[in-house]
Amino acid sequence: MGNRLTGACLFGQSGGPTSVINASAYGVIKTALEAPEITKTYGAAHGIAGILNDTLYDMGKEDPRELELLMNTPSSALGSCRYKIKDEKDLDRVYEIFKKYDIRYFFYNGGNDSMDTCLKVSEYMARAGWDCRVIGVPKTIDNDLLGTDHCPGYGSAAKFIATTIAEVYKDSIVYDTGMITVVEIMGRHAGWLAGSAALAQLSGTPPDFIYLPELPFDMDSFLNYVESTYKAKNNCLVAVSEGIRYPDGCFVSEAKPSLTDGFGHAQLGGLAATLAGIVGHRTGAKVRGIELSLLQRCGAHLASQTDIDEAFLAGKAAVENALAGNTGRMIAFERENINGAYRCKIVCQPLSVCANSEKDVPREWINEAGNYVTQEFIDYALPLIQGENTRAIENGLPRFAKLRKIKAEV
Amino acid sequence: MGNRLTGACLFGQSGGPTSVINASAYGVIKTALEAPEITKTYGAAHGIAGILNDTLYDMGKEDPRELELLMNTPSSALGSCRYKIKDEKDLDRVYEIFKKYDIRYFFYNGGNDSMDTCLKVSEYMARAGWDCRVIGVPKTIDNDLLGTDHCPGYGSAAKFIATTIAEVYKDSIVYDTGMITVVEIMGRHAGWLAGSAALAQLSGTPPDFIYLPELPFDMDSFLNYVESTYKAKNNCLVAVSEGIRYPDGCFVSEAKPSLTDGFGHAQLGGLAATLAGIVGHRTGAKVRGIELSLLQRCGAHLASQTDIDEAFLAGKAAVENALAGNTGRMIAFERENINGAYRCKIVCQPLSVCANSEKDVPREWINEAGNYVTQEFIDYALPLIQGENTRAIENGLPRFAKLRKIKAEV
Repeated sequence: MGNRLTGACLFGQSGGPTSVINASAYGVIKTALEAPEITKTYGAAHGIAGILNDTLYDMGKEDPRELELLMNTPSSALGSCRYKIKDEKDLDRVYEIFKKYDIRYFFYNGGNDSMDTCLKVSEYMARAGWDCRVIGVPKTIDNDLLGTDHCPGYGSAAKFIATTIAEVYKDSIVYDTGMITVVEIMGRHAGWLAGSAALAQLSGTPPDFIYLPELPFDMDSFLNYVESTYKAKNNCLVAVSEGIRYPDGCFVSEAKPSLTDGFGHAQLGGLAATLAGIVGHRTGAKVRGIELSLLQRCGAHLASQTDIDEAFLAGKAAVENALAGNTGRMIAFERENINGAYRCKIVCQPLSVCANSEKDVPREWINEAGNYVTQEFIDYALPLIQGENTRAIENGLPRFAKLRKIKAEV
Repeated sequence: MGNRLTGACLFGQSGGPTSVINASAYGVIKTALEAPEITKTYGAAHGIAGILNDTLYDMGKEDPRELELLMNTPSSALGSCRYKIKDEKDLDRVYEIFKKYDIRYFFYNGGNDSMDTCLKVSEYMARAGWDCRVIGVPKTIDNDLLGTDHCPGYGSAAKFIATTIAEVYKDSIVYDTGMITVVEIMGRHAGWLAGSAALAQLSGTPPDFIYLPELPFDMDSFLNYVESTYKAKNNCLVAVSEGIRYPDGCFVSEAKPSLTDGFGHAQLGGLAATLAGIVGHRTGAKVRGIELSLLQRCGAHLASQTDIDEAFLAGKAAVENALAGNTGRMIAFERENINGAYRCKIVCQPLSVCANSEKDVPREWINEAGNYVTQEFIDYALPLIQGENTRAIENGLPRFAKLRKIKAEV
């Protein structure tokens, strides 16, 4: 550790984008450009795909003011991919590119699939005897990475969801005729995002129920809860994860209605619309199904400043740790509760801990009835949505980073 | 005119809510509470419905700090309704309530239906010899009221739409695999909201096409444009108004697919999903259908400060004009272009001009191909989205007004 290694650095973005993924990019790029050991700073076009097809950008040729705007520019600025390294041939090709550009530092920003890519690259380079330090930078709105308290990207998505739920709540109660609203939230396997809807209770606008994918979904019980709430207060707001499944493991969003509700209704596209239709049939209420869709992960105008800062720090720490000799690790956050105040310190985790597995919401953070989260969940998530961002505005609209993306040449 | 009239004032909110409707409420309530001629300031629960069933709130019993928070609280704080005055019996009942509470000032906040209610109340009171001044306060995200340059509520919805389109654009280009995105925007009869998607071009993130309800929708032409754009750049982003209709007048959102696309696809709920499905079938592209839904009209976190200020001023001007002796009018905006800088002055229009009719986007503000708006449209809409709001935040979430809503007693 600590031995000085001189050479180029390569950074890539992978998987689904987030509102703050480019803050991590800026953390890596800025720190790398300032490091004397790092001779060149490259960005891969569309992650590993750009490495395999030899499309790297020379980040040193970008305007530093534009790079700084990455702090508030949503969605992978260098392009992303969902490609997973398939075989040794892919790794041979990565090695070829690493040799061509003298890559001695490799930083990859993504979720558990990307950490797997990092791990494979790291192990291959060790086997090949190519001195190269590989660090993963965590990113996912789903917040399901193991080995870290939370993931950059989650806090901003949670802030978007909670704020939107608060505003939709206000809208849903204006008419004297009553309404049932079903809001569909991302998160196919873990309920961290759906659970963040509960934070709206701090605005005095709580959803009545939240359904997470961690527990099997019982349609009868759901309908009974919604119906009795609607009867009692002429209104009901439900947040559901897109990933809820019946006890047989079948996604509610994909199940044939004849198998599920017995009403013979045609499926109306998204889960929110489907559930709203079923609920409407049962209660006779006016209903609304709302799918938050991509806005959850790209709504940078509502990004949490805490999340932006941490995303930047994760990128910066990746470079600093690599310079110090670390490799085969992922940057992670460890929460310290100092007199009840939130603070996180940055640590490094072995990539093998973070790759491929998923972290669910613990059962004890979901209430007994399985239709809301507990105070522990709220205490966990609330610090992550703090801080209003100070993004650049031009003409009343976001001023995003404009990168030149000059193709690298050796 | 100008004769002093002493008595109570009554304010009501009607129709679909907006992000800034309560800024107008605050303008009315604050000005009324400060006016010596106004003995009591009442708010109607759910607009005209609360008048008919004698549910008025005493606004003088609210905490002034909470009232001020109405400036950034979305969705009708007093409740709204869609009720239209049916007959003389309804008006008799309104008269009864006016006499009971000595209502001498009546302010009603809404769109063209609400201006019709205002007009009917105003004419009835004149016939009955009840000295009462009636002023309409305009409000509608649809921006389709005649007699005014624009409507409070529109600028904030346009800012939400343009910002969201800018962010979704960023998201839609991250993958190397390409994507076609269809975003559905509110506005059943007028294309002001859909057209505001074009403002995203000022962020460097323009939609490729915009379809407004003012022109008949040609599916073949639409598919050809989208397909050739997708082929040329591996990506395409389309904004469509929910109100687009086939040449036969049938809403695209309601048409049977067999009548429209010939592919025999089942309708997948919303218009965005339907069009995305058809486009995906034609091109083989990955597609996304996104419905902005209620967020457009309740997303107060993105409310334009220009819009908030104007909404407040419209409420304030309504009271001031009534105190000065005006009645049977709607508050309206008249744009003054002073050396190219945006400025609007407040004027009064006869209610009969504003009631019941709708203002469309002029044909010459839509391009010849009928798939985008012109620079004139952008010059019109851009000033209305200026200014970032400074809403109160607690715990990283919006701090909405909490009203006591004490039922009024005589």
